[in-house]
Amino acid sequence: MAVGQCDFPDMPDVAGIMMGTGCAGIKQTVKDDILVIQMAEQSTCAAVFTRNAFCAAPVHVAKANLAHKPRWLLINSGNANAGTGEQGMQDALTSCVRLAELVSGAANQVLPFSTGVIGQPLPVVKITAALPEAIKNLAPDNWDKAARAIMTTDTFPKGVSKVINIAGQPVTINGIAKGAGMIQPNMATMLSFIATDAKIRQPLLQQCLTLAAERSFNLITVDGDTSTNDACVLMASGCSDAPEITEGSEQYQIFADAIISVCKQLAEAIVRDGEGATKLMRIVVQEALQMEEAVRVGKTIAHSPLVKTAFFASDPNWGRILAAVGRSGMENMVLENVQIFLDDVCIVRNGGCANDYTEEAGQQVMNRDEITVTVKLGRGQAAQEVLTCDLSYDYVKINAEYRT
Amino acid sequence: MAVGQCDFPDMPDVAGIMMGTGCAGIKQTVKDDILVIQMAEQSTCAAVFTRNAFCAAPVHVAKANLAHKPRWLLINSGNANAGTGEQGMQDALTSCVRLAELVSGAANQVLPFSTGVIGQPLPVVKITAALPEAIKNLAPDNWDKAARAIMTTDTFPKGVSKVINIAGQPVTINGIAKGAGMIQPNMATMLSFIATDAKIRQPLLQQCLTLAAERSFNLITVDGDTSTNDACVLMASGCSDAPEITEGSEQYQIFADAIISVCKQLAEAIVRDGEGATKLMRIVVQEALQMEEAVRVGKTIAHSPLVKTAFFASDPNWGRILAAVGRSGMENMVLENVQIFLDDVCIVRNGGCANDYTEEAGQQVMNRDEITVTVKLGRGQAAQEVLTCDLSYDYVKINAEYRT
Repeated sequence: MAVGQCDFPDMPDVAGIMMGTGCAGIKQTVKDDILVIQMAEQSTCAAVFTRNAFCAAPVHVAKANLAHKPRWLLINSGNANAGTGEQGMQDALTSCVRLAELVSGAANQVLPFSTGVIGQPLPVVKITAALPEAIKNLAPDNWDKAARAIMTTDTFPKGVSKVINIAGQPVTINGIAKGAGMIQPNMATMLSFIATDAKIRQPLLQQCLTLAAERSFNLITVDGDTSTNDACVLMASGCSDAPEITEGSEQYQIFADAIISVCKQLAEAIVRDGEGATKLMRIVVQEALQMEEAVRVGKTIAHSPLVKTAFFASDPNWGRILAAVGRSGMENMVLENVQIFLDDVCIVRNGGCANDYTEEAGQQVMNRDEITVTVKLGRGQAAQEVLTCDLSYDYVKINAEYRT
Repeated sequence: MAVGQCDFPDMPDVAGIMMGTGCAGIKQTVKDDILVIQMAEQSTCAAVFTRNAFCAAPVHVAKANLAHKPRWLLINSGNANAGTGEQGMQDALTSCVRLAELVSGAANQVLPFSTGVIGQPLPVVKITAALPEAIKNLAPDNWDKAARAIMTTDTFPKGVSKVINIAGQPVTINGIAKGAGMIQPNMATMLSFIATDAKIRQPLLQQCLTLAAERSFNLITVDGDTSTNDACVLMASGCSDAPEITEGSEQYQIFADAIISVCKQLAEAIVRDGEGATKLMRIVVQEALQMEEAVRVGKTIAHSPLVKTAFFASDPNWGRILAAVGRSGMENMVLENVQIFLDDVCIVRNGGCANDYTEEAGQQVMNRDEITVTVKLGRGQAAQEVLTCDLSYDYVKINAEYRT
């Protein structure tokens, strides 16, 4: 189902970061479904969370514990512990307590994350029973296993690795993520865990992650739904030989660019694995008045079921793209200034179908499984790219049958 | 495909209003595809149009001509004359000129409307050739034929009729509409034409229609897309024996209530015929801070592909409804105060699944083909209802294959 090449990369160790997985049997399938990540003692940790007003219980706990210099992450797949009321909060806290007991840490240094079905009680007993196995497995080379343990409807594990040079020393950045549907970014839940051995203080790390999420995970959409559980965590162990990365430095720029790049690649992997996806669509909006306008137009196109079904059908239906641009809420829009391209084929110009456009040229592009839709608004200088996928029969099938 | 009973009603004549249809052969199918409506000389006429920034050519012309005491409406199905640039404007104007010549009227007293495929030149020659036939057919009892002539992907003609009492005299209101997909309201285009023999001045008629559209067509959604061509026209011939309806009078209240009721019934018929619809969903939001908040929450639920596919699957997946409420942009939302009902079954209370909820009770409701989802926000007094339908395989099929 996934679009394009989706192999899991070789991922080197990140000094100071260890991962262990275990099988709690939360769903019937026999697969590792819990993941413990342990950070070295002097690590810093940043996180961004869903904007859904109804956060799942683990999100509340993770937000609160972020202030207590977290040392451990506890992630389970198969159950979202969302819409579970007061009991859900107790269950999230209990999971943290149990892990803390086993690693002789403090419960408020554990960040919990859950993904899976909403509204069913978290099976704390099963999770607790599997914790010793996960802790025993803690090792720095478990990135592939970790990426698999957090999967739900994903069809492939998602990982990205990058090594950068900070003042002559190598710094490693590894990231894993899971999607796969209900991504705006969000629901069915997007989770991403990124680790580096860089040395960087928490406020600057948080600033970096917030920026990176804005430029990556917040610019993708599968179906416009926003999860109660989404989260992205960035951990920095400080165990590399590189000097501390400080605000305003050239090193910070290199580091931030690398984090953005890792987040973008993970975000793209999530869209490639969008539920039922057969095509990856890059919606590039240029010549907007401001960045915010470019994002809004891009997302309006990316959310349109009509546009998405047309792409599924490989139909170069530019009228639907134009109509989406028209309803995206721009003031004083001049239709005649808008140009639309499918890859390098101009399909709309001067308020209608481009004179030199041919159905053959359009069809040739639409038959590809990765397509860039470029919309030039003719209003300004701002540009932005939004990623999405098409809307297929299988999207309906996967989401109609999710609980059966 | 349509949900529920959709018979065309008996519609009495509306004094002063005549309709004639003709076959221009715009698409390959042999059906009447043009409709001319003629109003008596002293008629008043109001209209509301799509909010899409890219209006189709006929919308521009109709908006301009509304100021010139319109006497005729010229509607074609099969071609939207949208995204057709300068030529499209010429074609819309030419159609009006040709009709005016045949009826010895002024071209600027004709309001043109088009619905169908976007981006293909309007076949003016075909339309012009069919005009004499349509004019010859002008008669007051052609409501059923008129409703059929404006259909595109609709599976049944949509009509509503109502007789009210104004100062002891009967006043008739007839309305027809076409959908069927891409309704927010909008695209694939929603058109509605309503006629009455009431006597009422234009500004008050416009005020009445604007209110009625806000309470009806603007509260339905099939897929969140907004057409370039949507329009709703309200014609008042003044040919009844009832006295003029004036602002602030009791008669105006009766009249406005009737217009709202007709618009609501037509809007509901459009949703029942939503592309691929198997279920009609009434999203009732109560206890909101303001009306605007109730509408926003209702539309967020109604637009959610996850909610809509769950309904298609008859799956009482309240987590998806709750997640949609949570991402609808309310400030200071308290999850614990929210209650959600499927018909009369309470499914969410106190931040999670209601204690007394059973899957059997939820399943029993979900098996129905008309379901009311009631969301009580626990924040205030405002309430609103939004209508939508489910998202099925057939929605994808219809829209993937629309041009093939």
